[in-house]
Amino acid sequence: MHTKLAIGIDVGGTNIRIALVDVSGALVGILKQPTHADREIHHILGDIAQGIGKLMSMHNLSRQNVCGIGLGAPGFLSIQAGVIRYCPNLPTAREVPVVSLLQRLTDLPVCLENDANAAAIGEHWMGAGQGSRNLLCITLGTGVGSGFIFNDRVWHGSNDLAGELGHTTLFPEGLSCKCGRRGCLEAYVSATGIVTRTELALKAGSDSSLADFLNKPNNPLSALAVYEHAERGDRLAREIFEETGSYLAIALANVLNLLDLETIIIGGQVAHAGELLIRPTIHAVAQRALRAPYYPIRILQAQLGDHAGVMGAAKTVFDRTSYQASSI
Amino acid sequence: MHTKLAIGIDVGGTNIRIALVDVSGALVGILKQPTHADREIHHILGDIAQGIGKLMSMHNLSRQNVCGIGLGAPGFLSIQAGVIRYCPNLPTAREVPVVSLLQRLTDLPVCLENDANAAAIGEHWMGAGQGSRNLLCITLGTGVGSGFIFNDRVWHGSNDLAGELGHTTLFPEGLSCKCGRRGCLEAYVSATGIVTRTELALKAGSDSSLADFLNKPNNPLSALAVYEHAERGDRLAREIFEETGSYLAIALANVLNLLDLETIIIGGQVAHAGELLIRPTIHAVAQRALRAPYYPIRILQAQLGDHAGVMGAAKTVFDRTSYQASSI
Repeated sequence: MHTKLAIGIDVGGTNIRIALVDVSGALVGILKQPTHADREIHHILGDIAQGIGKLMSMHNLSRQNVCGIGLGAPGFLSIQAGVIRYCPNLPTAREVPVVSLLQRLTDLPVCLENDANAAAIGEHWMGAGQGSRNLLCITLGTGVGSGFIFNDRVWHGSNDLAGELGHTTLFPEGLSCKCGRRGCLEAYVSATGIVTRTELALKAGSDSSLADFLNKPNNPLSALAVYEHAERGDRLAREIFEETGSYLAIALANVLNLLDLETIIIGGQVAHAGELLIRPTIHAVAQRALRAPYYPIRILQAQLGDHAGVMGAAKTVFDRTSYQASSI
Repeated sequence: MHTKLAIGIDVGGTNIRIALVDVSGALVGILKQPTHADREIHHILGDIAQGIGKLMSMHNLSRQNVCGIGLGAPGFLSIQAGVIRYCPNLPTAREVPVVSLLQRLTDLPVCLENDANAAAIGEHWMGAGQGSRNLLCITLGTGVGSGFIFNDRVWHGSNDLAGELGHTTLFPEGLSCKCGRRGCLEAYVSATGIVTRTELALKAGSDSSLADFLNKPNNPLSALAVYEHAERGDRLAREIFEETGSYLAIALANVLNLLDLETIIIGGQVAHAGELLIRPTIHAVAQRALRAPYYPIRILQAQLGDHAGVMGAAKTVFDRTSYQASSI
């Protein structure tokens, strides 16, 4: 085998995905294993190294076939230093030099990337962002992640902390956010925010086929349930998605007014609502974005689903390897 | 004379400034003339060409001593095409190829730049932003302008429309903005917004030494008057500036959370309030910016005052000229 492969890793709070990706963007193989995020970070890294070994032997690969590992991790990172500084989803990962630790375990070069940035890189490379030089990729899951591509490169900011669209303020005195602040976008448009707003509306007496959820303790309300009821025509559920779109639109129009990007990509579990979410979002962005009368607004659903993160993590390996080669 | 000079121009709604700047950033000479913005744009450009000629002869310069003209203009531009597409402050400037027109009038190369971006470039080059790779420069005047510097270069966005911080949404159902939308930052923190909020508070019965302004039709309230009363200890006037800082802080913290910049520079007439504005802004940004516990927040008053625009416009000439030279 002559074509080198990269290994892309997406460390989530629940699962870790490990993928083999070739330089043309083909996903050669993928493996999913539980994170067990409450364990010591060294054990989690040990599991990752084992998973890498397993995936490589499944594909009859040796270290010579692999040019490196891209590690997509959540939380606050120092990317050049290869350190996870702080991560709410990996409680034991505080100031941990994950790059050197994983390098030692695998004897392969490792690059670190923020998970939301990795998703943006993946969608830009092989997904909905192909051909856009400047884009935002927002992931609506339990929380809200986001990553920017400017001039075809990911934007890290001065301290690798860029991309926290979820913690921009939507309503200065609004709902509490789990970050400790009030009125963050995440408190409204994440899966958690959708559940909170639905519960508040039900408690305020809104008529809805979702009312049963309030009385069944073992049947907790989820964003998926709200979506399913909306699909079946429930008015409250539909209104919740309309409202989610209009809230999201405020943040996205702000980004467009600030940065004038070509494309906004919406991914994550909440984006599975498709047109139910995207249509009201596009409508409300057009009302608030100054460029609307001049240039079209491109707001697209993500294309790579759960694979965006591993694809982007793998891409960082190709980019940084060739960057180093060309700078010698 | 061997050192080449650039001419930087700042076209405002009231005045046009024309400056001679050398490559080290020294302001060799400056001239200010009224815009008469309601006249035909061709007459305005003719005046600019005359002003350039006057300034050059005052300094005994011929065309050989000048490497080009940087034209900082307000409104929506197409920078590469050299066109002002639309400009609320220059009503006759619609789809006008100002670069080719001014080139013909002066026989000098002309580069176009947005006025708020020119101020950012100026502050980055010779003002409060020196040494910062990534910054936002916000100008609080009659309106709110802003420009980004990323990796030491100005950010134009995909269509030269980046930097509209003034029209990001602060309160989705808030005060009317002159752009036709509701709740824009500009409606709150511009000089106009400060006057509006003070008037609303006075009409609602707030006790203040500013109350006289409501009864004197020929003595209209201004942001400067609110500032002067605040300096003299008037409680309402002080609260208005505290509130201005806290509103501004929401937008600035959003920018920091999105982009993780090193420095934010606040300029324009409202920034003359100094600590009265900057102190509450810094306080409130620290509460909303995620990076606050990790990295310091640098929020600085602009240093170049009314010269930021001409300095930045001149710098674009040096940058684009040397860029072209090095790319041959």
